Amino acid sequence: MKNVAVFGAGRIGRIHAANLAALPGVTLKYVCDPMGDAAAQLAAQLGAQVSTPEAVFADAGIDVVAIAAPTDAHSDLITRAAQSGKHIFCEKPIDLSVARAQACAEAVRAAGVACMMGFQRRFDPTFNEAKERLARGDIGKPEMLVVTSRDPGAPPAHYLKGSGGIFRDMLIHDFDIFRWILCADGDEAEWLAATGSCLVDPEIATVGDIDSAVVTLRTRQGRLAQINASRRAAYGYDQRFEILCSNGMLQCGNHRPSEVVQSDAAGVHADKPEHFFLQRYREAYRLELAHFFETLQSGGAFRTTIEDGVAAQKLADAASESLASGQAVRL
Amino acid sequence: MKNVAVFGAGRIGRIHAANLAALPGVTLKYVCDPMGDAAAQLAAQLGAQVSTPEAVFADAGIDVVAIAAPTDAHSDLITRAAQSGKHIFCEKPIDLSVARAQACAEAVRAAGVACMMGFQRRFDPTFNEAKERLARGDIGKPEMLVVTSRDPGAPPAHYLKGSGGIFRDMLIHDFDIFRWILCADGDEAEWLAATGSCLVDPEIATVGDIDSAVVTLRTRQGRLAQINASRRAAYGYDQRFEILCSNGMLQCGNHRPSEVVQSDAAGVHADKPEHFFLQRYREAYRLELAHFFETLQSGGAFRTTIEDGVAAQKLADAASESLASGQAVRL
Amino acid sequence: MKNVAVFGAGRIGRIHAANLAALPGVTLKYVCDPMGDAAAQLAAQLGAQVSTPEAVFADAGIDVVAIAAPTDAHSDLITRAAQSGKHIFCEKPIDLSVARAQACAEAVRAAGVACMMGFQRRFDPTFNEAKERLARGDIGKPEMLVVTSRDPGAPPAHYLKGSGGIFRDMLIHDFDIFRWILCADGDEAEWLAATGSCLVDPEIATVGDIDSAVVTLRTRQGRLAQINASRRAAYGYDQRFEILCSNGMLQCGNHRPSEVVQSDAAGVHADKPEHFFLQRYREAYRLELAHFFETLQSGGAFRTTIEDGVAAQKLADAASESLASGQAVRL
Amino acid sequence: MKNVAVFGAGRIGRIHAANLAALPGVTLKYVCDPMGDAAAQLAAQLGAQVSTPEAVFADAGIDVVAIAAPTDAHSDLITRAAQSGKHIFCEKPIDLSVARAQACAEAVRAAGVACMMGFQRRFDPTFNEAKERLARGDIGKPEMLVVTSRDPGAPPAHYLKGSGGIFRDMLIHDFDIFRWILCADGDEAEWLAATGSCLVDPEIATVGDIDSAVVTLRTRQGRLAQINASRRAAYGYDQRFEILCSNGMLQCGNHRPSEVVQSDAAGVHADKPEHFFLQRYREAYRLELAHFFETLQSGGAFRTTIEDGVAAQKLADAASESLASGQAVRL
Repeated sequence: MKNVAVFGAGRIGRIHAANLAALPGVTLKYVCDPMGDAAAQLAAQLGAQVSTPEAVFADAGIDVVAIAAPTDAHSDLITRAAQSGKHIFCEKPIDLSVARAQACAEAVRAAGVACMMGFQRRFDPTFNEAKERLARGDIGKPEMLVVTSRDPGAPPAHYLKGSGGIFRDMLIHDFDIFRWILCADGDEAEWLAATGSCLVDPEIATVGDIDSAVVTLRTRQGRLAQINASRRAAYGYDQRFEILCSNGMLQCGNHRPSEVVQSDAAGVHADKPEHFFLQRYREAYRLELAHFFETLQSGGAFRTTIEDGVAAQKLADAASESLASGQAVRL
Repeated sequence: MKNVAVFGAGRIGRIHAANLAALPGVTLKYVCDPMGDAAAQLAAQLGAQVSTPEAVFADAGIDVVAIAAPTDAHSDLITRAAQSGKHIFCEKPIDLSVARAQACAEAVRAAGVACMMGFQRRFDPTFNEAKERLARGDIGKPEMLVVTSRDPGAPPAHYLKGSGGIFRDMLIHDFDIFRWILCADGDEAEWLAATGSCLVDPEIATVGDIDSAVVTLRTRQGRLAQINASRRAAYGYDQRFEILCSNGMLQCGNHRPSEVVQSDAAGVHADKPEHFFLQRYREAYRLELAHFFETLQSGGAFRTTIEDGVAAQKLADAASESLASGQAVRL
Repeated sequence: MKNVAVFGAGRIGRIHAANLAALPGVTLKYVCDPMGDAAAQLAAQLGAQVSTPEAVFADAGIDVVAIAAPTDAHSDLITRAAQSGKHIFCEKPIDLSVARAQACAEAVRAAGVACMMGFQRRFDPTFNEAKERLARGDIGKPEMLVVTSRDPGAPPAHYLKGSGGIFRDMLIHDFDIFRWILCADGDEAEWLAATGSCLVDPEIATVGDIDSAVVTLRTRQGRLAQINASRRAAYGYDQRFEILCSNGMLQCGNHRPSEVVQSDAAGVHADKPEHFFLQRYREAYRLELAHFFETLQSGGAFRTTIEDGVAAQKLADAASESLASGQAVRL
Repeated sequence: MKNVAVFGAGRIGRIHAANLAALPGVTLKYVCDPMGDAAAQLAAQLGAQVSTPEAVFADAGIDVVAIAAPTDAHSDLITRAAQSGKHIFCEKPIDLSVARAQACAEAVRAAGVACMMGFQRRFDPTFNEAKERLARGDIGKPEMLVVTSRDPGAPPAHYLKGSGGIFRDMLIHDFDIFRWILCADGDEAEWLAATGSCLVDPEIATVGDIDSAVVTLRTRQGRLAQINASRRAAYGYDQRFEILCSNGMLQCGNHRPSEVVQSDAAGVHADKPEHFFLQRYREAYRLELAHFFETLQSGGAFRTTIEDGVAAQKLADAASESLASGQAVRL
């Protein structure tokens, strides 16, 4: 039995807490959140107790911490958890600063604890099925990747102020998909060009960010990738990628709430994609935590390591730099 | 908090038991099965105890029984549960004899207990979405229904010996779909013609059954329905229906394990449908029990009543009669 | 070079005439129609001349007649064409009376002329692709066929007065599909049950017809078929069939004007099917005449013979009888 | 009646010649090709005569020339045709040199003749349907375009030697799609970054070309576009684009030879896309010539002008420059 504390009782913290509480062999002991009410409500709902980071780190009975706190708290919590000998599951990103992210990775290595990043897309049943076919070589060698990543709607501009910009806040997941799908054999990006605009909400420009972005990458082996991202898709959360290989192509489509198709005088209509990440990745969130504890038990390798987290952030930094300079970046 | 006992620790009993154990406000107290080992294993896994029908019916602390025992035990368990004042959730069918099924319905009414039939397809997210659009009148009045119902493979012929034949064993669900979708306003079948063959496994003919069946129904209001069913679809569990209405059509498609589409030299390939009922109706099984307890709480009407169970069995009887006589049946 | 006369300058006659005029090795010589203006206009447009049946049959330079006249003129034209030694392409049906249709077939045999029926669906690229896969045994032996056949809208009731009823007028094509797809090895229907209603337009009942029909067939080998047909599909011309075989299923979908898929706040929308038979079967109409002349040249067998025409009409008669009696028909 | 001469009796010349011969109001008079046999065979087949450019330009009875000769002959033929007062339909590209292409455009303007470029994709029924919905504003303002452009297989490397490179030879069509779809209101590209690799056939690198290419563009109004192209798609000719707009998305899918869907133990299989451009754009080739003569008659504006040809080539030049320098290009 593993005892766990969750940091963060917000939207994503509640998801993780509920999944932890339902996992066999796992006991959710503590919920920590500066917003005491949120922590208390979540703890009560799941039979856990409210606590503080200090108490958690001091409690020898806690094996694992799950970090779903605001981004700017991540690096401190990771470092202290590592120093306390706790294993760590942490939401992306590690930190908006690559230097601090690398320091976290070093602290984890030094402490010899396990640390897995919450790149939940790697656990999505559709994405993972594609990954397995690639790994088996079902359709030959990968050559070209196209990633589509669109949110259903833009958050208010002020919410994006401390986000680090669209590449660090939103495309970080897409950079991870790029590495997972196109660089599985140790290949890495060597050339990147990014650009973008404010097409959805002009307010977003006033906080120095963009809402529509495109990135092109070329790897050392010459593989090519394109990412297109927007803060708004009127038809819902659009999460697709397709990979051209030497013997064919794999396309990962969106998931729909139902398989009803309606035909009427206006056309033939299928459901929109599932609304947003909580719906689309509901199963992925469950599976990533199951994988975390299974891997902790078996001693195997995590599907998403803290090094993956650092690597994705370096790409996000390079994209930010390319956007600013108007030039390509050599990595 | 409702206390529940489950009868039956077989394939479907285990599904229901696990769903019951996970429902908030419900405590799974007992598991009963003449196969003691199965009962013990399931009870241990879910924190329940092994018991017997006698003990369950005598235990005033039990509010609800969930019947997932073999078909020939259903009517006795329903009757005794009703007489003991327990609310009842029962897998289809009530009984292979319509007379005994009606007697069960009377026992339930006499006792004033609640009884819901496990027609889980009414809780499938796709089928239910279609039902809701019909109820809202999104595409006008229903006129014609086509139901496709195919298992991935035929069971051994000897297994079908006591099944009551394909209409009672397999199409009972499709008859329920027919009534749910096409007869929502109180309409009922008035004409039925059925036929069929042994095309999959000639052994099935030796036990007096068929493996491929087609049924046509016409309602009092002139609506039309066709059901086609087979014990074998090489591509997996095929569960679809489409309904033509005055202003359009709704088609309910199969669910797939993933949304990966592979294009290669041989074609463009999507996943097969989910393998069988445990996969396809996993969510439906969960939702039907949640509905049962919510409705018990709220005092509202169940989506599937014991009367629905009797009505579906009457149609199965009529289809069996039509197959035997080679003639249409007027209901 | 084959010289051809067309009888009928209506909707379907114009289609055939234009296709004939464009066929290499074929000269459209004459257009005949009691509506002189229609004939003159069509002839002028295609560089042909107006004529009369008498003159055509007397003209030794005419090799082929294409009959697209009203149904009640078919049998007389076929018989006279055969007696004049002309090869015949004739629109379905041969005649509303099976006895007269059989007499036509005998006249054709006696004269030793070639005669092909215009069951154009057998030339539809999608349907024909399915047929070829069946013939190759790609997915094993055929077991069960489901045919969907729906017009975009019902004609005025008075137009249906002399049509012979929905089974002879509309489902004749579907009966031919049934024989072509399910009876390719010489199998034939041995049991049929049909029913139907007036759900679209109550006026149609006043002329003794129905607008919604369902038919079930079982062949001597036990194969099963269901046809569902309606005079109205609000979403356009719906022409599909699916065939379950021992190793899988083939589904023939509708054709669309474009492959645009629109996603918006209301859903994900594809085009409606092509509007009606002139659009959906445009290519099939062209291909069936090409096949006619190629086969005439090569001396091979037509894909659709006058015997196919008689056989389809017998099924239409049986369905009409079943509808009237409320009973199944043994063939 | 317009009299036409065709230059070029190769693959695309034969397509255009056959379409010209079938157009009402158009007479195909001459076929010119240095390969005399090819010209003679094509002329004979379509009832035309063999000729030479000199004779054609000197023949006052010729109204229109259709240029389907090798690329390096285009600019000379355009210039001489213009000087002879012939209207011009010309296959892309005008010339591999933008300077010469601009000189052609000036010659055309100076002569006051009509000149249309053969960007046939603008006439594809699917692409054109998308264009019309954009023009009507059905889904708001365009923001982001993703173009997928993949050939079924790479030509031999030596064939690509004089092609001008993948951007001028293959992506020229995609640059035109970009301008047509994303710049309809006069917007133009202002920033472009391209890269690519030899992933399909290393021989192609030896002639200084690549076989896999990606391009990113940003317009003056901030709209974004990505093009991905490969000389090889194992599943056939892949010609798609999707456009994200403020109120939704339009996706243009591939066309298939049939609408058969096969389900079997291996999956659910649809047809591959139509094999290559002769199949996919068969209808587009027909429609573009019909448009040319209708527009010539009506005096309206061509859908694809020689200026469009120049503009697409400038983008191809910029992409070639970006590939070579590894840097973005400001236009």
